[in-house]
Amino acid sequence: MKTVIVGAVAGGMSAATRLRRLDPTAEIVVFERGEHVSYANCGLPYHVGGVIADRGFLLLHTPDSLRTRFDLDVRVRAEVVAIDRARQVVRVREVAGGGEYEECYDRLVLSPGAAPFVPDLPGIERAMTLRSVTDADRLTALLAERQPRAAVVVGGGFIGLETAENLCLRGLAVSLVELDRQVLAPLDPEMVPAVHAELRRHGVSLHLGTALTKVLPDAVELADGRLLAADLVVLAIGVRPEVGVARAAGLTIGPRGGIAVDDTMRTSDRHIYAVGDAVEKTDRLSGETALIPLANTANRQGRLAADAIAGRPVRLDGRLGTAIVQIFDLTVAVTGWNEKRLRAAGRPYQAVHTHPASHAGYYPGAEPMSLKLLFDPGDRRILGAQAVGGAGVDKRIDVLATAMRAGLTAGELADLELAYAPAFGSAKDPVNMLGYIADNLITDAQRTVQWHELDAAVTAGATLIDVRTEAEHAAGHIPDSLNLPLDTLRARLDELPDGDLVVYCQVGQRGHTATVLLTGLGRRAANLDGGYRTWHAATIDG
Amino acid sequence: MKTVIVGAVAGGMSAATRLRRLDPTAEIVVFERGEHVSYANCGLPYHVGGVIADRGFLLLHTPDSLRTRFDLDVRVRAEVVAIDRARQVVRVREVAGGGEYEECYDRLVLSPGAAPFVPDLPGIERAMTLRSVTDADRLTALLAERQPRAAVVVGGGFIGLETAENLCLRGLAVSLVELDRQVLAPLDPEMVPAVHAELRRHGVSLHLGTALTKVLPDAVELADGRLLAADLVVLAIGVRPEVGVARAAGLTIGPRGGIAVDDTMRTSDRHIYAVGDAVEKTDRLSGETALIPLANTANRQGRLAADAIAGRPVRLDGRLGTAIVQIFDLTVAVTGWNEKRLRAAGRPYQAVHTHPASHAGYYPGAEPMSLKLLFDPGDRRILGAQAVGGAGVDKRIDVLATAMRAGLTAGELADLELAYAPAFGSAKDPVNMLGYIADNLITDAQRTVQWHELDAAVTAGATLIDVRTEAEHAAGHIPDSLNLPLDTLRARLDELPDGDLVVYCQVGQRGHTATVLLTGLGRRAANLDGGYRTWHAATIDG
Repeated sequence: MKTVIVGAVAGGMSAATRLRRLDPTAEIVVFERGEHVSYANCGLPYHVGGVIADRGFLLLHTPDSLRTRFDLDVRVRAEVVAIDRARQVVRVREVAGGGEYEECYDRLVLSPGAAPFVPDLPGIERAMTLRSVTDADRLTALLAERQPRAAVVVGGGFIGLETAENLCLRGLAVSLVELDRQVLAPLDPEMVPAVHAELRRHGVSLHLGTALTKVLPDAVELADGRLLAADLVVLAIGVRPEVGVARAAGLTIGPRGGIAVDDTMRTSDRHIYAVGDAVEKTDRLSGETALIPLANTANRQGRLAADAIAGRPVRLDGRLGTAIVQIFDLTVAVTGWNEKRLRAAGRPYQAVHTHPASHAGYYPGAEPMSLKLLFDPGDRRILGAQAVGGAGVDKRIDVLATAMRAGLTAGELADLELAYAPAFGSAKDPVNMLGYIADNLITDAQRTVQWHELDAAVTAGATLIDVRTEAEHAAGHIPDSLNLPLDTLRARLDELPDGDLVVYCQVGQRGHTATVLLTGLGRRAANLDGGYRTWHAATIDG
Repeated sequence: MKTVIVGAVAGGMSAATRLRRLDPTAEIVVFERGEHVSYANCGLPYHVGGVIADRGFLLLHTPDSLRTRFDLDVRVRAEVVAIDRARQVVRVREVAGGGEYEECYDRLVLSPGAAPFVPDLPGIERAMTLRSVTDADRLTALLAERQPRAAVVVGGGFIGLETAENLCLRGLAVSLVELDRQVLAPLDPEMVPAVHAELRRHGVSLHLGTALTKVLPDAVELADGRLLAADLVVLAIGVRPEVGVARAAGLTIGPRGGIAVDDTMRTSDRHIYAVGDAVEKTDRLSGETALIPLANTANRQGRLAADAIAGRPVRLDGRLGTAIVQIFDLTVAVTGWNEKRLRAAGRPYQAVHTHPASHAGYYPGAEPMSLKLLFDPGDRRILGAQAVGGAGVDKRIDVLATAMRAGLTAGELADLELAYAPAFGSAKDPVNMLGYIADNLITDAQRTVQWHELDAAVTAGATLIDVRTEAEHAAGHIPDSLNLPLDTLRARLDELPDGDLVVYCQVGQRGHTATVLLTGLGRRAANLDGGYRTWHAATIDG
């Protein structure tokens, strides 16, 4: 049995090495169009920034080392340009010489990846991308030779932000251009202002809600007419699955433009498998297809494709799309769906915002974070989570992603036994607290008001009650709110106006205590979810 | 409805505040024998060490603040000395004046906690304990006034190690005495040498496998006759549930010596609930009762007892006993059962050892850790996990504890979508890798040999093959092993002796590749689980 693999990074390489472990004598040929194999894609921005100084660290293998260790026939600068499915051969073009030859296969694994999207704009050929080692080499060479001072990064996604940060580290003045009103589309609007602030704090100039229209010799032009100085332009506006060869061969392409595969990674041709960024995955919540260009899923697919080729029963479950990015001193991590998407899909949900510390407040070094949990008010399953902060953000999202994958309900988060010592968490971990709050909403029918529902509540006649201290109130509060500190509330109940009440504190905890007190006394009261901090974040950003 | 609560820390305080939130007008009286309420028990060693400099940080509330905020009637230095169940009254002794009075209840919640065990030994009255704020005050006063130079800590559990570390931080010469051959009983023997080394590296003198027999005015005497200088002796040899009052009142005491409660925290008297360190919990794996004196479970029980009193349906699930401790620069975390316990219980299990990095090796700052996973070879469920290392240990144990709680199988760990960027993890996270290795053992029937099975394998005639490089082999290897580096193995197959082979590398990964190659070629080969590193740790410690 001979297996041909197209693409020697992430998914392709996982398939090749797993196949070898399953069969020490199978014939395995790997074609790679580029020069490098099995490299650490996700490290490229950090190599550009000098954080990963030694480029060799990114190159985990060479064709030689792969031959020696895994007996793989890896051919670089060899592009598969066509598949003849009837004859089961691929047509290979030698990038250097231009010669072509055919290679037959019993099974074919396509892992061509995705290419950075490059819009058709005047001057765009000067813009660079950062997807391969070759891209990174080009960028570092330019940084060394031309000593650029001003860079424009187009695109505020994960790669765009990592690139912006690393160009800052290299001393460049960086402008970031993003079509949306916010960076990091996976975050809901009230979660993102901390990211904008962190970027600005480090000198990144943000240009949101506007598009690149032209690349000039030393600047770029935006849709709003502004010119930004740009000795260097990096495009990071997303990637598109590389499906040209697959499409030309008549393989089914899915609705999102990726190669369609079943849950065993098989394409519409039963001899051909496809994995990685080029293929469509299944979204775990909707069951619909989705493009999820993430390394962990690519690696997993590669392994499962090898298992499938070896005749094992495999099944790739629907994906949550857990992702994380470091932005200077801030960490952002997400899993599942966000509120924007749930709302657009018309799917019922309930949201919880908290602002916990990474560990017990009485132990030094605790760092603040903001957490958001979305869950289904019907079956109570977790629909998504977002975390923005410092230490411990990765841990909480990993725990939540695990809980989602396992089908735990939001309330069951309260019962998780998470490791507690003062340096690591709290007796009630932030994840437990999400569970308790969700439980309060469901079991106790406690009412909360979201930041975006506040105006409507006030318009409908509700009075805002700030239960923080007088000092906190004086330092900033929501307009037209009455300050009745929690610890005086019982004594001052007669000062409360008639009608509906919306209570708030700094993060939602004292507000909860006040709300249950007032509700217990027969008042119609709701707590502002996430408190002043969430409201403030949602309303001050600009 | 009037609820009386005995004990104003952790469980008791959680019950009181939750009850208040459930009913704004309920009568709630809390008795606390000590002087302080609602304090951060787990921070006490760090206050002694000066890490938490401000003692006030540990005192989260006072009786006054609890009255103001939660309308709680909290009475300190008021000891409940008897319960008259027939009349539903408790007898209260005022610690200061000695006066006694009765207080009636509709519902009673017992949260008396556990007391440090103090063995009956000559001179033991000079030994101190560290359980309450009063204990900590006594210890810090002694440190300030007497300027002790040498301390002996008795007991190598969590509190003992935290105390030893913090006394080191205060500049004392610390000796640690532990009856067992190892500290931290929750760790299996091959996981613990790193902890011993870390303690020694920081100057802690370890006296393992010996007992305290006598406390002298300036020293302690051990069972092996040694004398250790001791200006200060701290006992940390475990705690015993405080069940005196409960027992005298005729409440059922469980087989482990804790108050017996059902899964709604109700004692054998339907008007009396009990929570926290004084009660027996249910072990999640065995279904048997267990003493698990951990703050998170105490807090959870307190809340659930309040819910039960309010007539809500509650059920505390079996406990895993997830725990974590920092020991200087090392973190140790555990969940579920260890191998010692599984073996003693005769329960079938399979073990996996790995030595991953906290994040991608190509990104700076990755810290090593050792992970151990135990799972059921039948239903493949996770039975326990241990982690020893630096950054990211807490995250992996929390993910594994969540997976256990949710009933995931070991193999399903491979499919978890954990947040990956170079600073936070790897495309295949250490937790994913545990899943892949478990999957190899089960699905592929790959054979591994544990460190403690190696001698038997060699005695039975197996040859040890070291597939590391010649340099690694030269730097240290298992006696009588043949060095055939992995990358030369295919070319040197004829050098392999006949018979069974046990393959090893540094951590198990190259060994796995070699083992599947050899197995695929028809040889009987097994991989040494955890590689040289696990074997070395298990065999060099002394």
